[in-house]
Amino acid sequence: MKTPEWWTLSTAQLAVEALAIVAFALSGVIEGARKRLDVVGVCVVAGLAAFGGGTLRDVLLDRRPLFWIEHPGWLWGVLALGIGAMLLMRAQHLEPTERAMQWPDAIGLALFNASGLQIALAAGLPALPAVLMGVVTATFGGVLRDIVCNEIPHAFSDHRPYAVCAFAGGWLGVAAAGAGMGEGSVLLLTAGSTLALRALAVVFDWRLPGWRDAGR
Amino acid sequence: MKTPEWWTLSTAQLAVEALAIVAFALSGVIEGARKRLDVVGVCVVAGLAAFGGGTLRDVLLDRRPLFWIEHPGWLWGVLALGIGAMLLMRAQHLEPTERAMQWPDAIGLALFNASGLQIALAAGLPALPAVLMGVVTATFGGVLRDIVCNEIPHAFSDHRPYAVCAFAGGWLGVAAAGAGMGEGSVLLLTAGSTLALRALAVVFDWRLPGWRDAGR
Amino acid sequence: MKTPEWWTLSTAQLAVEALAIVAFALSGVIEGARKRLDVVGVCVVAGLAAFGGGTLRDVLLDRRPLFWIEHPGWLWGVLALGIGAMLLMRAQHLEPTERAMQWPDAIGLALFNASGLQIALAAGLPALPAVLMGVVTATFGGVLRDIVCNEIPHAFSDHRPYAVCAFAGGWLGVAAAGAGMGEGSVLLLTAGSTLALRALAVVFDWRLPGWRDAGR
Repeated sequence: MKTPEWWTLSTAQLAVEALAIVAFALSGVIEGARKRLDVVGVCVVAGLAAFGGGTLRDVLLDRRPLFWIEHPGWLWGVLALGIGAMLLMRAQHLEPTERAMQWPDAIGLALFNASGLQIALAAGLPALPAVLMGVVTATFGGVLRDIVCNEIPHAFSDHRPYAVCAFAGGWLGVAAAGAGMGEGSVLLLTAGSTLALRALAVVFDWRLPGWRDAGR
Repeated sequence: MKTPEWWTLSTAQLAVEALAIVAFALSGVIEGARKRLDVVGVCVVAGLAAFGGGTLRDVLLDRRPLFWIEHPGWLWGVLALGIGAMLLMRAQHLEPTERAMQWPDAIGLALFNASGLQIALAAGLPALPAVLMGVVTATFGGVLRDIVCNEIPHAFSDHRPYAVCAFAGGWLGVAAAGAGMGEGSVLLLTAGSTLALRALAVVFDWRLPGWRDAGR
Repeated sequence: MKTPEWWTLSTAQLAVEALAIVAFALSGVIEGARKRLDVVGVCVVAGLAAFGGGTLRDVLLDRRPLFWIEHPGWLWGVLALGIGAMLLMRAQHLEPTERAMQWPDAIGLALFNASGLQIALAAGLPALPAVLMGVVTATFGGVLRDIVCNEIPHAFSDHRPYAVCAFAGGWLGVAAAGAGMGEGSVLLLTAGSTLALRALAVVFDWRLPGWRDAGR
C-alpha cells in the first residue's frame, strides 16, 4: 500500500479533507438556520456535519487522535464559519432553501467518500466494510445533523440517489485498488465518479425505486 | 471462565448471534417500510437494528474488530434481506403492522441479551454493568432504529415489559454463572428466561406501572 | 501536571463528579416524566443525562474503563433515583415544569465542565479541543436526553446562554492553567465561573443574539 507517491498523497488527502469539511460545515449552517437554532446550535450542527462522519469512522475503527483534536485549526475554522454565516444571513434576510445545500453537499459527499474508503483500505478492511466505511464517512455527518435537527435523515428518506452514489463510487475505487492502481489515482477516481453520479442524479432528478402509494 | 466446552460454545454463540441478527434486521425492515423510507434507509435501519446494539457494546468495552467488519458476510446478508424484503412488500402490497414486529423482536431480544451478558462477564465486568451491557446489546439496536425513524424509542415509552425482561433474564444468568454453571448453560438460561418472560408479557398484555393520567 | 495536591484533587474530583451525576440524573427523571415515559425510559434518560456526556468524552479520547463500569455504585444510585422519583411524582401528582430543571442543570453544567476540561488538559489536548471537551462533557448528556425524547436539544435552540457559559468558563480555566495555577484551583475556578455565568443568565433572562423574525 505504501508507494513512493505517499507524500504527495498525504498532502492531497489533507486538501481533500479540508474542502469536504468546509462544504459540509456550510450545509450544517444552512440547516441550522432553517431550523432557527441559536448560535450554539448552528455551530454544533455545522461541526457535526463536518466532523461527524469522520469521527464515527475513527471511533468504529479505533483510530486516534481524532482529526479535529489533532488539528484544532479546523475547529476554529468551523466556529468562524458558523458565526460568520449566521451574521451574514441575519443581516441580509437570507432564507436559504433546501436546494442551496445540494452542491456543497455533493462535493463533501464525494471527497469524504474517497478519503474514508482509502483509510479503510489502508486499515486492511474487506471490500464491503471498506466501501461502507467510505459511505459512513460521507453521509453520517449529514445523518447526525438531521437527527439533531429532529428530522428523519434526508439520506434515508428522500428517494433520491445520494448514499447510493457513494456506494457505487466506492466499488469503483475498490476495483481500481484491486487492479493495482496507485493511492492517488484511486482517491481521484472514487471522488470523481461519486461526484459525477451525484451531479447526474441532481440534474436529471433521478429517483430510487419507491413504494407504490407514495414515498414522500 | 475457559472450560472444555469452549469450542462448542463458540459455535453456539455464533449461531445465536446469527439468529438474532436476522430477527432484528427484519424488525428494521418492517419499521423502515412503515415509515416509507427509501431503499438506502430501509437497509441502514435494518443494519442499525441488527448491528447497532452489539456495536455500541463493543465501542463501550473497546473491543475490536467489530462483528460486521470481521464477518462481512453478515453485512451482505442484511443488505440482501433489506432489498429482498422491500421488493416483496412492494409487490404484494404488504402493510406490515406493529404487531408483525413482535416475534422477531422477542427472539432477537433474548439472544442478544444472552450473548451480550456473556461477553461482558468474560471481560470481567461487575454484575450490574454486565447485566446492563446485555440489555444494551439487546435493546439499543431497536433504540437507534427508532431514533433514526424520528420516534421516541418503543422500549422506553410503551409501558410494556421489554428491556425489563432482558434485565431479569440477565440477573438469572449472573446468578447461574456465580453458582458455577458452565458458559453454554448460562447462555441458554439467559436467553430462555428472557424469551419466556417476553412471551408472557406479549400474550397476557402485561403493563408496567404507569402514570396516573395516562401513559401513552 | 502532577502536583503534591494530586490526592486531594482526586477526592475533590470524585465529589464533583458525584454531585454533577445526581444533578443531571434528576434533570433526566424530570424530562422523562414530562414525556410520560415508562420506568425503563425514565431510568435510561436519567442515566443518559448523568453519564452520557462523560461517556462520549471518554469514547472520543479512548479512555477506559468508563466511569459507570468501574463504579457500579453510581449506576445503582441512578437506578434508585429514577424509580424513587417516579414513585414519588406519581403519588403526589407532581407535574414538574421546565423551570424545575434549571438549577440541577446549572450545577451539573458547571461541575462536568470543570472535570471534563481537566481530564482533557491532563490528556494533553490543545486549548480549543480541551475547552470543547469540557463543554461536551457538560452538555451532551442533556443533548442525548433530548434526542431520545424526540426534541431538538434545548442547548441548541432556546437562544439562552448555556453551553456558552461552559465555553467561557473553560477558557478561564485554560488561562489559569496556562498561568501555572494548581489543578484544584483550576477546577474550582472553572466550575465557579461557569455556575456564576449560568446563574446570571437564568436570573436576568439573558438571550443570545437571534434571528430577526423569531427564534423560538
